[in-house]
Amino acid sequence: MDRVYLSKEEMPRSWFNIVPYLPEPLDPPLDPETKEPISPEKLLTIFPEPLIEQEVSTQELIEIPEEVMDILSLWRPTPLHRARKLEEYLQTPAKIFYKNESVSPPGSHKPNTAVAQAYYNKISGVKRLTTETGAGQWGSALSFATQYFDLECRVYMVRVSYNQKPYRRILMETWKGEVIPSPSPYTNAGRQFYEKDPNHPGSLGIAISEAIEEAATREDTKYSLGSVLNHVLLHQTVIGLEAKKQMEKEGLYPDVIIGAVGGGSNFAGLSFPFLKDKLIGEKPDLEVVAVEPTACPTLTKGEYRYDYGDTVGLTPLIKMYTLGKDFVPQPIHAGGLRYHGDAPLVCKLYNLGYISAVAYDQRKVFEAGLIFARTEGIVPAPESAHAVKKAIDEALKCKETGEEKVILFNLSGHGYFDLSAYDKFLRGELQ
Amino acid sequence: MDRVYLSKEEMPRSWFNIVPYLPEPLDPPLDPETKEPISPEKLLTIFPEPLIEQEVSTQELIEIPEEVMDILSLWRPTPLHRARKLEEYLQTPAKIFYKNESVSPPGSHKPNTAVAQAYYNKISGVKRLTTETGAGQWGSALSFATQYFDLECRVYMVRVSYNQKPYRRILMETWKGEVIPSPSPYTNAGRQFYEKDPNHPGSLGIAISEAIEEAATREDTKYSLGSVLNHVLLHQTVIGLEAKKQMEKEGLYPDVIIGAVGGGSNFAGLSFPFLKDKLIGEKPDLEVVAVEPTACPTLTKGEYRYDYGDTVGLTPLIKMYTLGKDFVPQPIHAGGLRYHGDAPLVCKLYNLGYISAVAYDQRKVFEAGLIFARTEGIVPAPESAHAVKKAIDEALKCKETGEEKVILFNLSGHGYFDLSAYDKFLRGELQ
Repeated sequence: MDRVYLSKEEMPRSWFNIVPYLPEPLDPPLDPETKEPISPEKLLTIFPEPLIEQEVSTQELIEIPEEVMDILSLWRPTPLHRARKLEEYLQTPAKIFYKNESVSPPGSHKPNTAVAQAYYNKISGVKRLTTETGAGQWGSALSFATQYFDLECRVYMVRVSYNQKPYRRILMETWKGEVIPSPSPYTNAGRQFYEKDPNHPGSLGIAISEAIEEAATREDTKYSLGSVLNHVLLHQTVIGLEAKKQMEKEGLYPDVIIGAVGGGSNFAGLSFPFLKDKLIGEKPDLEVVAVEPTACPTLTKGEYRYDYGDTVGLTPLIKMYTLGKDFVPQPIHAGGLRYHGDAPLVCKLYNLGYISAVAYDQRKVFEAGLIFARTEGIVPAPESAHAVKKAIDEALKCKETGEEKVILFNLSGHGYFDLSAYDKFLRGELQ
Repeated sequence: MDRVYLSKEEMPRSWFNIVPYLPEPLDPPLDPETKEPISPEKLLTIFPEPLIEQEVSTQELIEIPEEVMDILSLWRPTPLHRARKLEEYLQTPAKIFYKNESVSPPGSHKPNTAVAQAYYNKISGVKRLTTETGAGQWGSALSFATQYFDLECRVYMVRVSYNQKPYRRILMETWKGEVIPSPSPYTNAGRQFYEKDPNHPGSLGIAISEAIEEAATREDTKYSLGSVLNHVLLHQTVIGLEAKKQMEKEGLYPDVIIGAVGGGSNFAGLSFPFLKDKLIGEKPDLEVVAVEPTACPTLTKGEYRYDYGDTVGLTPLIKMYTLGKDFVPQPIHAGGLRYHGDAPLVCKLYNLGYISAVAYDQRKVFEAGLIFARTEGIVPAPESAHAVKKAIDEALKCKETGEEKVILFNLSGHGYFDLSAYDKFLRGELQ
């Protein structure tokens, strides 16, 4: 097993912002009332000033505060592994590498931004954060992060997950998060669904509406989002910056970079520092592939237009590939990929042809996840198994062509809270 | 957060055997039939030759095979952390360090020996391994390890855990382990309980009897034990060997070393390489503390005598502190500590006064576990939380006396599969 190390001293000291390298500017978010570009002042009701500055920044490098580095270094730098056992199993001439973000205490890449967001809210005088969570990865990352900065954390958790995933709920509570099944009776957004049906299963869109409403109406409270926005993707670039150094240590540069896309943050986190080289013309042949579920084919089948980020329509309108804010995906196990839209930065780069996308069926994805667990030993999160599937397909293509491509993918999280889905797959009961 | 790194090159190349440093020889295991010292030939029916050689070896250093190093390096060297957030919370002048064994794919220290045992069985021509598991840590470690060496793995899992901990069962199956609720109808040992009650809750002692019987009666099958025996403790010394190098990098040597004791393997793994210094008189004041639950107080209340390792009486008799082979501990959540005996090596050193022991009540242990989760961010396994509790107590003693002691404990595993126990504790429902 090859694991490429970085020392603490080799951790990146700044995040990488891809915005200055975009061939054309991002389309601005629009005010949901006026449909005009939204003013930073209006965003201040839900986000603290330093995060809004990052959201609109055109600076390439943004320094990571010491206080954030301190917490990240509990599990960062994360390992980069060469997947030799998988290569042997596939009998491929390709070299497969994966960045292992599953080693964080919450089990995914999510705390990379949760810690940063908690810090900036803290220094801005905020006392409470609200957020939403589907499968629970983001809610547990934010609960984990807020406790280091003495912030209260309220998580609106999609009710169907609240009932089906008690372990994720308990993990949040162990880290002092307050978990509310959504739709709830505590917000206007939730009440309209809750009053019709107190057992309403909920959706990510409704939970976002509840969390934003609460932040907008309470002085001491801001809202925190786990993906999609520019500043969230920015915080995730530590993944790619580390991976780049680690690949350099191996004397290699990837030919193909792969990440699963729900909102886009783990994908962007790994790929953006490499994509810079493609944007400046140094690596014109670099392939960057976004993988999504066929049940929620945002990039592969969505429309590129302005849409709301939530169901009720409280968020700014953002230009993205979207399946429509009312789209309700099948209840696949990769809960983190069940979002109707995608990050504007990812969408722009996809629209301009710098990124390609592919969609896979859930069963194929679990098949790949199981192969990975049985060769490399780590059980991938269903989300991450999408990236595994594409990496395997690329490696098998190399087997046919004889090419010795260097494949790099993001193992964004482990599947230890998703074992019931693997159980269903093993028993042939997965749809 | 301070994390002390070791590079792959700094990994120990040999295991450390404490036997040559014992002030008096170990009492030999006795044949259950003749009550005479058992012959190595008889042990060959259940263990392969290289492991029997290690079991009786008096050589200080035993080389770790390349094939074992290769798999261990997937997660080793493990981090040594300075628990600064915990120190701040306790306002103690003590320096608290913990070795983080929770980062392995099965989530504990157990694969350190599982990989070695799978390897030695493989090169000895064995095709199948049997074992038992209580809470599931050991069964998942062995399932994880055997898949790298194309061995079949059958795990007899105590039925009450099989029913209550489906995630652990699924994890084993994901790694191709075959999991059988025990007592089962497949062995004589199991049948006598199963036929009276097909829903018999089972016990670790019965499951051991089943696994050993199967190994003893099938040519292609050997038995694998996750703790207690000398060779198991030997394989775990990578923990302490790494920790010693890491402490040296910090320019420190521990005053107190703490580990939870079920069978003794994580405790011995961390402490033995340091205990050598006490045995040779270089560190006469080093305190080494074994922590056990009051519900299973083997060292603190057991008798030092020969006893069987299992319930039915199939194992050799071994000299150890024991609560009696028929002792049934309360169903506490630290399943890995519910064993009636302890490793002969640990018992000998305890009997000679080189080790001390303390027992804690389950509620105090979970209180400590929660403090750790909310300061250091990692949710400890209930077993490991015993060590956390003692570390906290030591640190609070330092707060009173003003001593700046260096405390080192073993975080032997994470508690992500034990969250329902934390849930009960948070709700005040834990007994």
